[in-house]
Amino acid sequence: MTIADETTAVKRQTTTAVDAALHELYDALPEGVISVWGDDIAAHAQDFSIFSPHRTSALLLPETVDQVRRILAIANKHAVPVFTWGRGTGMAGSATPTRDGFILSTERLNRILDINTVDETVTVEAGVITADINKAVERYGLFYAPDPASAAISSIGGNIATNAGGFHCVKYGVTKDSVLSLTVVLADGSVITTGRHTIKNVSGLDVTSLFVGSEGLLGVVVQATLRLRPRPTTTATVVGFVPRIEDTGKGVEAVVGSRVQPSVCEMLEFLPQIRESARFAPVVGDAQWMLLIQTDGEGAAADAAKLTAALESVGATAVQVTDPDEVDWLFELRRSGKPYPTDAWLAGGDVAVPLSKLAGFLATITGIAERRGLTYQIVAHVGDGNLHSAFFAPKSEYDTYPEILNEAHREMVQEALAIGGTLTGEHGIGLELKAYLADQIGERNLELQRAIKRVYDPKGILNPGKWL
Amino acid sequence: MTIADETTAVKRQTTTAVDAALHELYDALPEGVISVWGDDIAAHAQDFSIFSPHRTSALLLPETVDQVRRILAIANKHAVPVFTWGRGTGMAGSATPTRDGFILSTERLNRILDINTVDETVTVEAGVITADINKAVERYGLFYAPDPASAAISSIGGNIATNAGGFHCVKYGVTKDSVLSLTVVLADGSVITTGRHTIKNVSGLDVTSLFVGSEGLLGVVVQATLRLRPRPTTTATVVGFVPRIEDTGKGVEAVVGSRVQPSVCEMLEFLPQIRESARFAPVVGDAQWMLLIQTDGEGAAADAAKLTAALESVGATAVQVTDPDEVDWLFELRRSGKPYPTDAWLAGGDVAVPLSKLAGFLATITGIAERRGLTYQIVAHVGDGNLHSAFFAPKSEYDTYPEILNEAHREMVQEALAIGGTLTGEHGIGLELKAYLADQIGERNLELQRAIKRVYDPKGILNPGKWL
Repeated sequence: MTIADETTAVKRQTTTAVDAALHELYDALPEGVISVWGDDIAAHAQDFSIFSPHRTSALLLPETVDQVRRILAIANKHAVPVFTWGRGTGMAGSATPTRDGFILSTERLNRILDINTVDETVTVEAGVITADINKAVERYGLFYAPDPASAAISSIGGNIATNAGGFHCVKYGVTKDSVLSLTVVLADGSVITTGRHTIKNVSGLDVTSLFVGSEGLLGVVVQATLRLRPRPTTTATVVGFVPRIEDTGKGVEAVVGSRVQPSVCEMLEFLPQIRESARFAPVVGDAQWMLLIQTDGEGAAADAAKLTAALESVGATAVQVTDPDEVDWLFELRRSGKPYPTDAWLAGGDVAVPLSKLAGFLATITGIAERRGLTYQIVAHVGDGNLHSAFFAPKSEYDTYPEILNEAHREMVQEALAIGGTLTGEHGIGLELKAYLADQIGERNLELQRAIKRVYDPKGILNPGKWL
Repeated sequence: MTIADETTAVKRQTTTAVDAALHELYDALPEGVISVWGDDIAAHAQDFSIFSPHRTSALLLPETVDQVRRILAIANKHAVPVFTWGRGTGMAGSATPTRDGFILSTERLNRILDINTVDETVTVEAGVITADINKAVERYGLFYAPDPASAAISSIGGNIATNAGGFHCVKYGVTKDSVLSLTVVLADGSVITTGRHTIKNVSGLDVTSLFVGSEGLLGVVVQATLRLRPRPTTTATVVGFVPRIEDTGKGVEAVVGSRVQPSVCEMLEFLPQIRESARFAPVVGDAQWMLLIQTDGEGAAADAAKLTAALESVGATAVQVTDPDEVDWLFELRRSGKPYPTDAWLAGGDVAVPLSKLAGFLATITGIAERRGLTYQIVAHVGDGNLHSAFFAPKSEYDTYPEILNEAHREMVQEALAIGGTLTGEHGIGLELKAYLADQIGERNLELQRAIKRVYDPKGILNPGKWL
């Protein structure tokens, strides 16, 4: 048998298995749960990354946990791949189909099942839009803290799969710090419930944290009980303008040194809108970069005053912003960021570095770009050392995606690892960073994580072709 | 072969393996690392629980990570059990030797390796006393938040093994919320480093959280990088006096309902010292129970005022305590608790329940005791719903440990599970609760956790005879 023959044989076998599984699924599921329409499938296969999905045979839209169980039991029996899909806002190709099989969308599992105002918990199905959780609990003086920029369009299941971050992580932690309990359908269709509806719980291994951030590789999260926090009634906002990108790092060091805990600590490139605004024009000067910092709680104003002094101590122009509309406007500018050029190829990044290395690392990034004649943009959850960066190469100079961007990305990642940083602060490994994972965590650690994958998914049907 | 013969055969085999391993260890380790002296071994085998240790052949006191590697490689080769030992302050028999083998004490791995005041991290060896971490970082305006009552005598390695809690968890989380990275020696002597020195990190599975709370079953934690927090410069303290135990639950509901985040929320039985103190005598009235609540940060006083009003709204007598010596005295009373009667058998507990069920559950506990003619004591991290309870039966009535105490304990545990509580909030499963673990987490979940154990420790040499 030649290699071509073998490939054909594998393909035929897979297709037969997919067909057989699909046949059983039609019997096992009510009408409307299965779609084999190409447009439907395509609309649930391309996330926000650059990775193109493999064509799959069907899109599954289960409405109940029991339907998810049936889907997985049948897929597992036939060893057919299942790619769990939230709302497609992933940045790293974590959910991208890599071969034939089924896409399992959680979008119809969209009920908020319980709000407990004394336990300060909410129990939701995986397909609920993250921002809707906050809309539902706001009236009780509570909020769900993790707030990725995608919160208005991403699902909580996707947030859990990637351990999503956001603006408020610097004080309230990432998604895993707000997940108390999960209901997970495993590859064989069995169901486990992890964790507990209590803040403290040390009964058995912390399997909840294992599933958070596992990017659809270990099981399908169908329900979650989340910890809510008292919604701060008071906030105070400070912006700091600085001339050079490294100065934002120095600003963060000053913020940390003040020993005030900000609730938000973001960095953004100096936007034309801000320079042109009547409010900020008089104070901007030569600044090119800015920090957007917030404190919350009864001590917010006193804390903000300390942070203002801290920023000024390192030469930043610090301004307290009290008009709520101005605050919203600044947050919206940070959320949307500077638009990417449309006439350029790009290489994005999501590394996080220790704060003590931040100023130096920001200079490293500019150096990487300048040495290669590339442009760059950075916005950052800078209080966490987490940078969303992009290098650009003009399409006018390069007909196809240029290797120089891969080189710049590789150098940035390797420099981040060399100073104790991480490949990804909140976007996940997905397809984008799988080649680097062993460099960060070590071969032995990775090999053991693969063995954990086999514990939960012995046939490897869940999200194959990724990093485990 | 009779059962007696078999038992002897197993014993001989084990002893031979232990002897062979010990022989190799003498060659592999410097003088002074191995002790076979009975008193040494006995001093590293009995924790604070009621469980008596099995006699082991040696106590190992490695001074370096490399020595730990050699110990485990040799023990694993001969399939000899290794029981990792911190400082013996465990409450549930988690580290108690259950068969022949070696006790591996981490007490000589006691160096603070690095303090990074910008990253707000500290890197320590596993044997460092937890309170010593705070002594070392205090001068930088930082603190390590988890503060189990044993902090002055327990090791950080033991705290990590049990995911220890403490007073400040209600605001700052438990041990796992402060562990960023671990260096772990696995059963075969290989070493992995988990996590990263960054607050955010989603590279690979969250193996760090898997090791935290794993009670010595998955590997030997030798180093940890911990997250520090800004040390609050201001605190405010409120005590609330209430007549009945259930009223403390109502008080906590009022605290939660105020949407103020306390930094401490404890419950203690009304102590004679407080009743007799000049300070509190005038306000105590008929109260039998009290809440000890603290807020911190720039808004501490305003928050404390809100909490005072909340407590008064449910009929508690609330008093703000401003004298630092009085505050220290109250905390010390809570830490030490009411002394246990020495003339009674006891059954302790560490369940945690959802706050919405707390008042009812406190009444359940008193009912369980009263129906059996038992006395009880409870102190609690009540803001977490985490109760340290004990039932007592007088030795004058019972010559040996009475079954009635086991019954009371069982009923309490089952009632806690029935309302969504957990077997243990911070003490761990150990020997005490292993019989109930499947009742809480489910057989399938437990079976998969056993498979994870086999991934890291295929021969089952680490802490055998426990819950995995």
